[in-house]
Amino acid sequence: MGKGRLEAFSDGVLAIIITIMVLEMKVPHGDSLAALRPVIPVFFSYILSFLYVSIYWNNHHHLLQTVKQVSGQILWANLHLLFWVSLFPFVTGWLGENHFSFVPTLMYGLVLLMAGLAYRLLSIAIISAHGPDSLLAQAIGRDKKGLWSIILYFLAIPLAFVHHWLSLAIYVLVALLWLIPDKRVEKVLTE
Amino acid sequence: MGKGRLEAFSDGVLAIIITIMVLEMKVPHGDSLAALRPVIPVFFSYILSFLYVSIYWNNHHHLLQTVKQVSGQILWANLHLLFWVSLFPFVTGWLGENHFSFVPTLMYGLVLLMAGLAYRLLSIAIISAHGPDSLLAQAIGRDKKGLWSIILYFLAIPLAFVHHWLSLAIYVLVALLWLIPDKRVEKVLTE
Amino acid sequence: MGKGRLEAFSDGVLAIIITIMVLEMKVPHGDSLAALRPVIPVFFSYILSFLYVSIYWNNHHHLLQTVKQVSGQILWANLHLLFWVSLFPFVTGWLGENHFSFVPTLMYGLVLLMAGLAYRLLSIAIISAHGPDSLLAQAIGRDKKGLWSIILYFLAIPLAFVHHWLSLAIYVLVALLWLIPDKRVEKVLTE
Amino acid sequence: MGKGRLEAFSDGVLAIIITIMVLEMKVPHGDSLAALRPVIPVFFSYILSFLYVSIYWNNHHHLLQTVKQVSGQILWANLHLLFWVSLFPFVTGWLGENHFSFVPTLMYGLVLLMAGLAYRLLSIAIISAHGPDSLLAQAIGRDKKGLWSIILYFLAIPLAFVHHWLSLAIYVLVALLWLIPDKRVEKVLTE
Repeated sequence: MGKGRLEAFSDGVLAIIITIMVLEMKVPHGDSLAALRPVIPVFFSYILSFLYVSIYWNNHHHLLQTVKQVSGQILWANLHLLFWVSLFPFVTGWLGENHFSFVPTLMYGLVLLMAGLAYRLLSIAIISAHGPDSLLAQAIGRDKKGLWSIILYFLAIPLAFVHHWLSLAIYVLVALLWLIPDKRVEKVLTE
Repeated sequence: MGKGRLEAFSDGVLAIIITIMVLEMKVPHGDSLAALRPVIPVFFSYILSFLYVSIYWNNHHHLLQTVKQVSGQILWANLHLLFWVSLFPFVTGWLGENHFSFVPTLMYGLVLLMAGLAYRLLSIAIISAHGPDSLLAQAIGRDKKGLWSIILYFLAIPLAFVHHWLSLAIYVLVALLWLIPDKRVEKVLTE
Repeated sequence: MGKGRLEAFSDGVLAIIITIMVLEMKVPHGDSLAALRPVIPVFFSYILSFLYVSIYWNNHHHLLQTVKQVSGQILWANLHLLFWVSLFPFVTGWLGENHFSFVPTLMYGLVLLMAGLAYRLLSIAIISAHGPDSLLAQAIGRDKKGLWSIILYFLAIPLAFVHHWLSLAIYVLVALLWLIPDKRVEKVLTE
Repeated sequence: MGKGRLEAFSDGVLAIIITIMVLEMKVPHGDSLAALRPVIPVFFSYILSFLYVSIYWNNHHHLLQTVKQVSGQILWANLHLLFWVSLFPFVTGWLGENHFSFVPTLMYGLVLLMAGLAYRLLSIAIISAHGPDSLLAQAIGRDKKGLWSIILYFLAIPLAFVHHWLSLAIYVLVALLWLIPDKRVEKVLTE
């Protein structure tokens, strides 16, 4: 089974998720600058989520690069990842409309954590389908960045009880961490 | 006529359906955990429908794998299937917002049934275009899983009059039945 | 310039249009069969528009089949067609919510007419890029079905002033006319 | 790394943006011609934005034509462009619902300006990945049209303080400027 449609479907879902998030920024009723004020926090949560969905698309792109055959396990691991990413528009809207308050921040982090774990599961499914000596297994190695992200998402949960801005700072930090493109796969591929 | 655009269009429609369903989960107004409570049933109906659309995409993927030529009949059978699947966001929202009550449960089942029949029609259109000795005809065989799904959807209708949770249990059961990937097509293809 | 991205973009836009139309069917508040009643006319307008967008995708598919080179003129004629088709969700919702009353029926017909003319313009742009002796020019011939559709849409305007159900009957008639797949292009291609 | 998925993802995002903008045209409650009146300004802002997204898709199409390898820098420059274009539905709805008044006009222009700069950044990222002697570097040359657009968007800001219709006139002017297809890339490619 080819990977063409898996990529096309994932691209489609991610493209729609990244775009419908903008619908959470409701057009304000007035036409003054002040009327824009309630939209500002939603705008910031939109930027954060746009970054995260971009990162997932980007990493997904790299990950699939190395895939040769698609098993049923990979298909479902991929759909599982898309499920958690599909909750981004909901938690983004909730986070923004409540000005980054405690419970929405916690929920946003939970979705990030689940998506991070789902991505890891997908990597494992791909490695197990291609063998531990495959290109991907070498490329991902112990995937330090992926592991660190998950650890940081976990840390963000208790930290939210100290102050939820600490959790938000972690979400931004992890996003910036991933903005640096993933050279590992590229490196192994060019060798 | 190639099947490339048929696959691309179907992937697009299924990707959009699976993603806009999340828009039925309206962002709650408060920021407490309690504010999330009315969203929970919609969330569960979303999970169920996400599973079903995933299954349709997955099976569609397998089905089209074997197609060589696309006839006008196949095109329209495919659009007919997409029509019924496109009603998922509507019945999903209705089911969730009314906490899985009687009439919405019945309607949800009706859409499942119609989509199941439409999928069967598509299989028949493909088999009739490729001949009864084709790969697909062998692979699908008597399609026991597909037939059982349709029989179970039918059974769910009178059972809803006994108690609508019985129907919901059937919808979940059929979904789980399909989560096991379709080995039949893969098996014949690899021979 | 290749036609691959033109097809992909058009498929994307048409897939989204056909799917977001379903969002005009607002989830009713009650959970009785009676609560569904206000949705029924929107459901019927949805079916009609689903048919029309399907027909456009189907014909677009056939039309592009014959295209070899894409000129700037073809790109813009294609975008012009997509513009008019993109108004379907709006007029569909308006038609359905007002139970097929006079002005919405007229507006729906106007959008059908403009889309029909835009499709014709696209055919002309493609023929002019490939020469009057090209496959497409032969296949389309004088495009009697296309011309008849446009004439019927025109007729539907004055007839709406007699009774708007006459116009609706014409819209349904033209849709059924196109449901019969376009054999002309297929015939010339196989020769 | 291939450019296939970059194109597919961008096509997807642009196709969704161009289509969800139509959702800002809310279905009116009455069924008279008068009920349509409040939709008219939103319709005009929709036309303008449809033109702009079309132009971006069109130019993006030409730009990517010349790309051979995709670097991480190009990926992110592309996502940055998509971010600004994704704000079109929001500013389009705001502009239309407020009948092209002062602040929304200014904001619309700001998004146009940022998208224009992002497009330029993408061109620079592509040129820097392919070398100054590459096909693209020659084709784009000093990109007079792109520069003029950015200068005109800049000019539109102070002019809005004189009268905001002057800014709107500039937005329309730039759109018309780009409607003329970009012959530069085509010319170099055919040589």
